[in-house]
Amino acid sequence: MTSNDTRILALDFGGTKLAAAVVDKRNGEICSIVHHPTPSLRGATACIKTMFDMGRQALKECGLVTPGQVGISFGGPVSTDRKEVLMSSHVAGWEGIPLPKLAREVFNCPARMDNDANAAAFGSWYFDTHCEPENMVYIQVSTGIGSGLILNRSLYRGGGIAGEFGHLTMIPDGPECMCGKRGCLESLCAGWALARDGREALKNASKESSLYQLCQGDPLKIDAKLLIQAARMGDSQANAIIKGAFTALGIAIANVILLLDPQVIMLGGGITRAEGEMRAVLDPVITRELHPLFKERYKLQFSRLDGKDALLGAALLHE
Amino acid sequence: MTSNDTRILALDFGGTKLAAAVVDKRNGEICSIVHHPTPSLRGATACIKTMFDMGRQALKECGLVTPGQVGISFGGPVSTDRKEVLMSSHVAGWEGIPLPKLAREVFNCPARMDNDANAAAFGSWYFDTHCEPENMVYIQVSTGIGSGLILNRSLYRGGGIAGEFGHLTMIPDGPECMCGKRGCLESLCAGWALARDGREALKNASKESSLYQLCQGDPLKIDAKLLIQAARMGDSQANAIIKGAFTALGIAIANVILLLDPQVIMLGGGITRAEGEMRAVLDPVITRELHPLFKERYKLQFSRLDGKDALLGAALLHE
Repeated sequence: MTSNDTRILALDFGGTKLAAAVVDKRNGEICSIVHHPTPSLRGATACIKTMFDMGRQALKECGLVTPGQVGISFGGPVSTDRKEVLMSSHVAGWEGIPLPKLAREVFNCPARMDNDANAAAFGSWYFDTHCEPENMVYIQVSTGIGSGLILNRSLYRGGGIAGEFGHLTMIPDGPECMCGKRGCLESLCAGWALARDGREALKNASKESSLYQLCQGDPLKIDAKLLIQAARMGDSQANAIIKGAFTALGIAIANVILLLDPQVIMLGGGITRAEGEMRAVLDPVITRELHPLFKERYKLQFSRLDGKDALLGAALLHE
Repeated sequence: MTSNDTRILALDFGGTKLAAAVVDKRNGEICSIVHHPTPSLRGATACIKTMFDMGRQALKECGLVTPGQVGISFGGPVSTDRKEVLMSSHVAGWEGIPLPKLAREVFNCPARMDNDANAAAFGSWYFDTHCEPENMVYIQVSTGIGSGLILNRSLYRGGGIAGEFGHLTMIPDGPECMCGKRGCLESLCAGWALARDGREALKNASKESSLYQLCQGDPLKIDAKLLIQAARMGDSQANAIIKGAFTALGIAIANVILLLDPQVIMLGGGITRAEGEMRAVLDPVITRELHPLFKERYKLQFSRLDGKDALLGAALLHE
């Protein structure tokens, strides 16, 4: 074993952002990191090319030629054997792409892949909770919503695609979701759903409202981050949207606690940066929706890995 | 080891029925069985006394003095160490009762306990599916609704009380549930909820309706079984109630599939005797509420253990 063996090239394919980093898997230390917006409109091939260029750059910055391994976190479901991508809801052309094989050929070392929620769950459990909870549900709330289940101290995959928390039906016949069905949690609380609701609200917003001011009247400038900022500034429409979205999330979290009785619910992903706003809604909703026996059995935590959960988890992937 | 070792006294404390049986744990063969309605109104102590008498009778019928073990299936949550009952929603006075200790003293042998959904799940997985599925969700729909999770070929208990499927929130601010919260699956689809809705429907039922005819106008005669019978005879109110209840169940099942990606969903409990009526509603609802990737990955099965799932599972309990 050379010292290279513990330095892993971690590639995180997100719906809106790509990140490539060289990570020391012993301690989660990041030797180098490269970011780039996801070239979503140019499809899967452009994403792969951009990411591999970023990977080469990250290696170069560390003076590495060949990493110990490539670990890939993919923002969408992957096949049961984790050798192929099944699909992405956000970028076209991903179906069936053998991403680990392509990475192996380019970087000349073994390559492993998992979906981003599983990678983030494992990264967070390992580097943030230090493997303490026996059972932990990691919920990623960003462009989409996913979850990774650590059960009995291992990543639980079911038949291969467990953890589709974002597509739990919360409101039968509710808003249309990216997946084709209706009323999924994602359609109520994912980044894209908050943006959609914010754009809709703009139609009724006065020019003095924070929502209007922040986007200067341009609906395309509204994303989840801007909406949350407007809510913080006291915008009543933005506040109502946020409250409704986080209430749906709280009910879904209560349901997963009732089913799995985990010690920790860990929240990660871009939207969870609004920790104060989320806690203010989640804490009372979860308490209300739990069977009395479950109260005070779980801890609701926010990831402290600064958005690098999936990247760090990718560095830990193994067979 | 004597031959007695494989003959277990299994005691099933249900919300409406008690059953005691001597079961050969090697093959699930029932040597003797005794049934009795649960003396609910007389509280926990009366239930225990009745059950222990039944146990003695079951042993006597087999010519046994001391069984290899007592296995107890309890119709409600039990403590994490499974040494005490936490509560029953249906019978008063159960809090903190050390049922295995009491059984050990009476029957002079080791005694183990689990909640009925866990016992039924394990019994069904072992004797019905012959341990085939790696991951199976067992859902018990009877007086109450519970579930037992077989994950990675073992009973998954979380911190000790996982599987509270009946208290998943389906309709925020929905009907009041026994547990004190609102809109739980139980409040929409458990035996008691169907009876409640049937009694309410009777107020608007014509004297010619099947619902009225079957109960002879007496609301107290209406239970889930009678309601399902009325639906079968074409009673439109009864049909609407059943359809609504099974739709809620279907959505909850789709959600657990999305989360756990199990190979088998096994349905058991008294209400599931209406297999035809249930399938007619569940199949299309589950299909509609699943993310496209999950379709045709799971099998929906109905238990073939003739209501003895929990009893047979109790015979298999171990540390």
